[in-house]
Amino acid sequence: MNPTIETILNHRSIRSFEDKPLTDEQIDTIIACAQAAATSSFIQAYSIIGITDRDKKQKLSELAGKQSYVVQNGHFLVFCADLYRHQLIGEIEGKDVIPAIESTEKFMVALIDASLAAQNVAIAAESMGLGICYIGGIRNNLEEVSKLLKTPERVIPLFGLAIGVPMQEPGQKPRLPRSQVYHLNEYQQDKNRYLEGLEEYNETISAYYEQRTGGRRNDTWTGQIAGMLENQSRMYMKEYVQKSKLDLR
Amino acid sequence: MNPTIETILNHRSIRSFEDKPLTDEQIDTIIACAQAAATSSFIQAYSIIGITDRDKKQKLSELAGKQSYVVQNGHFLVFCADLYRHQLIGEIEGKDVIPAIESTEKFMVALIDASLAAQNVAIAAESMGLGICYIGGIRNNLEEVSKLLKTPERVIPLFGLAIGVPMQEPGQKPRLPRSQVYHLNEYQQDKNRYLEGLEEYNETISAYYEQRTGGRRNDTWTGQIAGMLENQSRMYMKEYVQKSKLDLR
Repeated sequence: MNPTIETILNHRSIRSFEDKPLTDEQIDTIIACAQAAATSSFIQAYSIIGITDRDKKQKLSELAGKQSYVVQNGHFLVFCADLYRHQLIGEIEGKDVIPAIESTEKFMVALIDASLAAQNVAIAAESMGLGICYIGGIRNNLEEVSKLLKTPERVIPLFGLAIGVPMQEPGQKPRLPRSQVYHLNEYQQDKNRYLEGLEEYNETISAYYEQRTGGRRNDTWTGQIAGMLENQSRMYMKEYVQKSKLDLR
Repeated sequence: MNPTIETILNHRSIRSFEDKPLTDEQIDTIIACAQAAATSSFIQAYSIIGITDRDKKQKLSELAGKQSYVVQNGHFLVFCADLYRHQLIGEIEGKDVIPAIESTEKFMVALIDASLAAQNVAIAAESMGLGICYIGGIRNNLEEVSKLLKTPERVIPLFGLAIGVPMQEPGQKPRLPRSQVYHLNEYQQDKNRYLEGLEEYNETISAYYEQRTGGRRNDTWTGQIAGMLENQSRMYMKEYVQKSKLDLR
């Protein structure tokens, strides 16, 4: 196993960082890694906002659900789907690019581009001995996040990424059985096989939570996920995305 | 610079592979790497379909725009946004998860989850000395791709990933100037600064194409991208996604 694969397999989310800023060199490397990711048809439909201003971090943390590690970390990045610059490009070139920019296809492309870049950053940071945590919580209130970060229309902040020197070494959460995620030649739709796999996985996850909490947490994966989904969070998203003039047609 | 960062910075898309299948061990490692990626609230909303069947590869290649490297490679993966298993989970747990599953928020989560997993695979493969190419072309005709791969509703094939022993060593396309992609504390909306950056980048890209084609290709980035966007490809996507019962509310 080479060191890169070791780094990838060793991933766990870190939620407590030393208050030690990344060096400029580290940030340069990390952004270069983001930009080295593949991009659909060379479109480069994403942006990254680095947050160093303490007040902004504080406000972001409140908006994202008061997570202390949004404030205390080595660096904080916000990854955005970005088709604003492509609107400018249309103006420069005198071409009507608006229908494409407003399409669901290009919305998907922008999300994929931003995510590939972000995962390069995650792996690069971890390979340097740093820890990371994705912060989906910024999607709790994108109207406010967008105001704070002054993002124009056609730009949507997707998630944060806290990076820094880890102050904890949490366990790794077991993932779904491989047979649930990896299919050969066609999607495995056999419901019974699916249910068996989920049952097996529930046992794994129950044992994990029980061990991690000294018996206090008694939960299954299907129970946890069904509860979360029943909760219907962030149902304003469709309206917000369309108000940002993406995913319209 | 550590070997992982070297791997990441050395990325280029490979479009010609030896006809040498990956070993089972390589595939195991690669899928383990996919599963090790972060996932939003532990939702694991993606699936991967590995294609070994030659006929299926041939058909996929035709659907994706007749790219030979969709057929000839070491392994071919299709990454899917997947909320089908979450529908099953709702049934198992007797909870109404449908509004959440049909939300734009969860559609975004599934796209992000799938992309983070895919980029782990890309980096892992490249760290083994293999090459990769993302195949967005499968989105040319998702109705047919979905039939071929038997994906159920709430599952959308997003892109392919061809992996294999490289038979070429293409140059690296220069990316946007860092100042266009990386903003500090707030989004840089100054239009003139933006335009200057694009002008600078156009010169870089023109020089790159000229050099790579021995003077035959005369193109700028803004010209290339505006042309592509004016073309309005895959405008059926919104209808397809909603027919798949995602991004509905």
